[in-house]
Amino acid sequence: MPKLDSPQPFVTVDVVLLTLKGEELQTALVLRDREPQAGAWTLPGGWVHPGEDQDALDAAVRILRTKAGLKSPYLEQLHTFSGAHRDSRGWSVSIVYYALIPQSLADGTPSARLKWAPVEQVRALPFDHLAMLEMALSRVRSKTLYSSLPVHLMPETFSLSELQHVYEALLGAPLDKRSFRRRIDELGVVEEVKGAFASPGAHRPAQLYRVKRHAVGALALAQSNLGVKP
Amino acid sequence: MPKLDSPQPFVTVDVVLLTLKGEELQTALVLRDREPQAGAWTLPGGWVHPGEDQDALDAAVRILRTKAGLKSPYLEQLHTFSGAHRDSRGWSVSIVYYALIPQSLADGTPSARLKWAPVEQVRALPFDHLAMLEMALSRVRSKTLYSSLPVHLMPETFSLSELQHVYEALLGAPLDKRSFRRRIDELGVVEEVKGAFASPGAHRPAQLYRVKRHAVGALALAQSNLGVKP
Repeated sequence: MPKLDSPQPFVTVDVVLLTLKGEELQTALVLRDREPQAGAWTLPGGWVHPGEDQDALDAAVRILRTKAGLKSPYLEQLHTFSGAHRDSRGWSVSIVYYALIPQSLADGTPSARLKWAPVEQVRALPFDHLAMLEMALSRVRSKTLYSSLPVHLMPETFSLSELQHVYEALLGAPLDKRSFRRRIDELGVVEEVKGAFASPGAHRPAQLYRVKRHAVGALALAQSNLGVKP
Repeated sequence: MPKLDSPQPFVTVDVVLLTLKGEELQTALVLRDREPQAGAWTLPGGWVHPGEDQDALDAAVRILRTKAGLKSPYLEQLHTFSGAHRDSRGWSVSIVYYALIPQSLADGTPSARLKWAPVEQVRALPFDHLAMLEMALSRVRSKTLYSSLPVHLMPETFSLSELQHVYEALLGAPLDKRSFRRRIDELGVVEEVKGAFASPGAHRPAQLYRVKRHAVGALALAQSNLGVKP
């Protein structure tokens, strides 16, 4: 270890865990059980455990497992927040990841110390967690414009209309059905489930799709964005 | 400070500093003067100085100032590398930034302990610095497809042909002149320098441009990418 005059920064990992309930994007918050900010709801996070974690991603996976009881299929590094004043305990670093999960997984998370909050209603969070949440939302919306990211929010099977609704909910804007379907073709990440149809109401049955095996936990990029400003 | 059984990770900042010499993308390497890897050329980097740096960006700015004698106009966080095995001294975190500078600035950097290496010729670097360099190159190329990033490599004034050559050098592919000019119009980051012309060889004089004041150190995004795969 280096010899330095001043103490080294301490290192944490925080996770912005997102799901879509209906058309509402929600984020997981956990109840802090120690100072500072004991009793407040914050993003799930914790110290890096150098004896246990191979790297920061490994710490994020452990935090999701222990605090939310789940293994996230899509976990990506968002940004590292750092500085002298973001935590009252001293100069600190937080390596932030974000994850998207389908509602069925979110429904299975423990409820005593974890809650789901609609992102539009989260107006304050301890530390710089609100800035982390806002950056994650901005990243998710911008990736929705040119990638397959939203498929990580989908249940096991879904119709293309349902997928379009998810894109529209994330973008807050309607999409043209034909150009949306061209986009999904171009991305090449979903496939028909042979013989499986949904029959919502009086409409004719809709073909069901699933995420292709190679696309689970991956990201496909398009050549252009969807042409709307999120 | 937290009480933990094991020592906390130590935290460094590394910078991938890039310039374009002719059509060749080059990266700055500095001579390490202490173990491990004393005498090796590495990316410019150093410890976070908690008593001096407000945050990691501040540390990156200080490292560029002290190791390369310059203030970079464009500095962006790339990724944080971390883990038990990337540095022989123990579990460590490196918050990595990348910066683009015009050749005129690169020419003014000190030469005793800093050299510029063509990125294509860098095949090995200590620690995980090669992975950092590769990620930075990938980021720069992908941003070249849909943003104004390459203008940070330009001298004070330049013709649109020169700017196109820079885009082409970064992408390793020729671009159609008309669609390139539409793209530059769309981005809205350069303006004519009234009455200033370049006269390269026998061609008619080319209008010179400069980066608009608001676009210095900023990034403008396009609605679509340039349609080539870098």
